[in-house]
Amino acid sequence: MVNTDSVSVRVFSLNCWGIHYLSKHCSERYAMIGDALSKEEHDIVLLQEVWSEKDYHSLKKKLACTHPHSHYFKSGVIGSGMAIFSKHRIHDTFLYRYSLNGYPYMAHHGDWFGGKAVGMAVLNIGSLVANVYVTHLHAEYCREKDSYLPHRVVQAWELQQFVRHTSAGADVVILGGDLNMHPQDLGNRLLRSYTGLRDAYLETDVFDGCENGITLIAENPFINKRELVPFEQGIRIDYILFKGSSKTKIYCDSMSTTKGSVPDHPFPYSDHEALTAVLRLEPHTPNETGRGMQSKDQDSAAEKKLAELVDIVTEARTEVKVGLHCAERMRYTVARSGLMGLALLVLELAIAAVPWLALGEEQPFPRVSFYLLAALCFAILLTAILLYIFYTMELKSLQGAEDQMRLAVGGLQEKLRGFPVAQPHNTQCRPPEGQDPSAVDPVE
Amino acid sequence: MVNTDSVSVRVFSLNCWGIHYLSKHCSERYAMIGDALSKEEHDIVLLQEVWSEKDYHSLKKKLACTHPHSHYFKSGVIGSGMAIFSKHRIHDTFLYRYSLNGYPYMAHHGDWFGGKAVGMAVLNIGSLVANVYVTHLHAEYCREKDSYLPHRVVQAWELQQFVRHTSAGADVVILGGDLNMHPQDLGNRLLRSYTGLRDAYLETDVFDGCENGITLIAENPFINKRELVPFEQGIRIDYILFKGSSKTKIYCDSMSTTKGSVPDHPFPYSDHEALTAVLRLEPHTPNETGRGMQSKDQDSAAEKKLAELVDIVTEARTEVKVGLHCAERMRYTVARSGLMGLALLVLELAIAAVPWLALGEEQPFPRVSFYLLAALCFAILLTAILLYIFYTMELKSLQGAEDQMRLAVGGLQEKLRGFPVAQPHNTQCRPPEGQDPSAVDPVE
Repeated sequence: MVNTDSVSVRVFSLNCWGIHYLSKHCSERYAMIGDALSKEEHDIVLLQEVWSEKDYHSLKKKLACTHPHSHYFKSGVIGSGMAIFSKHRIHDTFLYRYSLNGYPYMAHHGDWFGGKAVGMAVLNIGSLVANVYVTHLHAEYCREKDSYLPHRVVQAWELQQFVRHTSAGADVVILGGDLNMHPQDLGNRLLRSYTGLRDAYLETDVFDGCENGITLIAENPFINKRELVPFEQGIRIDYILFKGSSKTKIYCDSMSTTKGSVPDHPFPYSDHEALTAVLRLEPHTPNETGRGMQSKDQDSAAEKKLAELVDIVTEARTEVKVGLHCAERMRYTVARSGLMGLALLVLELAIAAVPWLALGEEQPFPRVSFYLLAALCFAILLTAILLYIFYTMELKSLQGAEDQMRLAVGGLQEKLRGFPVAQPHNTQCRPPEGQDPSAVDPVE
Repeated sequence: MVNTDSVSVRVFSLNCWGIHYLSKHCSERYAMIGDALSKEEHDIVLLQEVWSEKDYHSLKKKLACTHPHSHYFKSGVIGSGMAIFSKHRIHDTFLYRYSLNGYPYMAHHGDWFGGKAVGMAVLNIGSLVANVYVTHLHAEYCREKDSYLPHRVVQAWELQQFVRHTSAGADVVILGGDLNMHPQDLGNRLLRSYTGLRDAYLETDVFDGCENGITLIAENPFINKRELVPFEQGIRIDYILFKGSSKTKIYCDSMSTTKGSVPDHPFPYSDHEALTAVLRLEPHTPNETGRGMQSKDQDSAAEKKLAELVDIVTEARTEVKVGLHCAERMRYTVARSGLMGLALLVLELAIAAVPWLALGEEQPFPRVSFYLLAALCFAILLTAILLYIFYTMELKSLQGAEDQMRLAVGGLQEKLRGFPVAQPHNTQCRPPEGQDPSAVDPVE
């Protein structure tokens, strides 16, 4: 069955957990990772959390023989942490920074400073054009009360948009990285359904790795087991996804993950497990391409998928609306605090000024308290202004995503109806006066 | 010569100058713009500087008959200000926010708050897929000493990346907006050369408008003539660009701009002139497509273009390096100020603490001065930290763009050499120890 024109591509993905002074055995682990990569000679290596560019450069040096082509994606304050190493020449790169990525004042979580993004590299594998994406989404710190969920959903939304819109010219699409989402999480379903990307773990013929393909495992010595509860065994949040094109078919022949320990080493490569997928690319034979005419079964399957997608985008829209509500509340709170700071300042100035005006030299307001209070009011006011600006930007991004989702759902529903596009000129010519114009056409 | 299958598309672009309370006659001008648009019935309307969403919604209401499909792109604190109105259904949208866009503390320039970006809308014109882009780049406030030039060049770089990578699946590409660049400015050449987009003004058979196609004209009553010096007549910074595909040919049949005044109205639509281009789309006939085999002349023209592009990207890289140098200097200054604030604070605490430790109740440091100085030190320190973070992000974006440009130049040079890709394994296996790894391969 194996086509003689087939090409095999080995893809590797690992979240390196590369925070110097905070991540345990960081330098030793980078040395291990470098050794393994130069030995294994994967075609494409996708790394995340390479927070220090020095580490990237030392890896680059080590892999100069096996992976002569590489790129580090720069973003945020200390990021993006994403790097790609390749046997094949990288012709072009592009970076999309997610519009939402946590909060700068949540410095202990650090995601905002990482500048999470999706990086793209265009490379030629033989005569084929491959678009390779590497990404890292916002972490989930508390599954029960995940305040970052709307941000992660918007990131997944932007990720699928980016992949969909930039991959039209590619023969093969490969995406790897730490999505920080369980396999059935909303963002993951959104990404896979909308782009048509297939999950290497679910598609592989042969799998060697941890049970259920988990990549954050309880046995890993760097993992705090309590943080995995209620998933005692572990969770799957790192992925290699792929899809072909009208020109190229793609299969996953085998997949493997590391299983916590590394032979001859006292600790694993990272707190995440590493993924390796062996993909097989085959050209579409002419009569296969000719089979493009859809049967009734195919039509009904496509319709079902489309209906599913509408549901998923609608679910995502709901989640974004929850985020909008929270962001609005936060902005309101901050505005109120700012106004209180301002009121206090005015009050203080009035109290201080009135006796001076009325009683001349007499000053009943103790000077030290006066200046301390004034400084406090200023601090409150300034912080409130900065946060107000930040929350306004968050709101804009959330509203923007929601608008795009609404428009997309409309487009998909139109498609679902088999494109009986009614001429909108007659129905929409007279929007009722006073009505919210956005309610005229739910699609726009 | 006109193909019977040809489709005519009328595209309109205008920077609306819609800052309520600051822009003169804002509401009246919006009413005029709305009237003109509903009368003219362009296929695609691209607006910039619609800073208030209320204005977008009132335009939407007004144009419900003529342009039933629309989208407003949300970005930044008050932006993005970009809107699209269309006769044809908008199926999908996508927004790319530029990674660099001025400085928040330059509030009087306001660009940072506008969240400059490029918005894309995918629409069907008949059976053709059209990718329509609307954008607005950072303004130029002083041409002689343009501190925003590196930012604008990076914006142009990201714009060309976005258009190039997202338009592979499109039959037609149309871009309109206020590029804030003269026709021969670096960013403009970069955009046109890399994407292959053609300038409607230069391509049109018939032109009716201001001399040289200028869109900021001295006769416009809203324009401060002194700001145009040394271009007394005016400048051309608004554009409609377009390109076809292997499937579709595109021509500009006619183009026009407004000329300052509007008949029967006391003032013009905006401080910019409005652009209208009539584009003609024609399918490639089969034997034309068959003519794909390149002659020697075509080869040599392509080679010349490629060499030109290499020069332009190299020029852009130099400009980004200048920006890098400035950002590094700014960050250094801010770091020094922060350290001075910290040192002053420590010094003050030491002065205040020592007599207290040594002399008991005696306190020679006046309390008021103490608290005032401490507050000042804190303010300096905090501002320095915030600015340091901001400049670090600016540096990351500039470095990222420079890396991408270096990689792109390498790829283009490789192409220029006619793809005699030397196996890099032999030449690069032993990078000299101690050498900057980035110097090993100038391409990566």
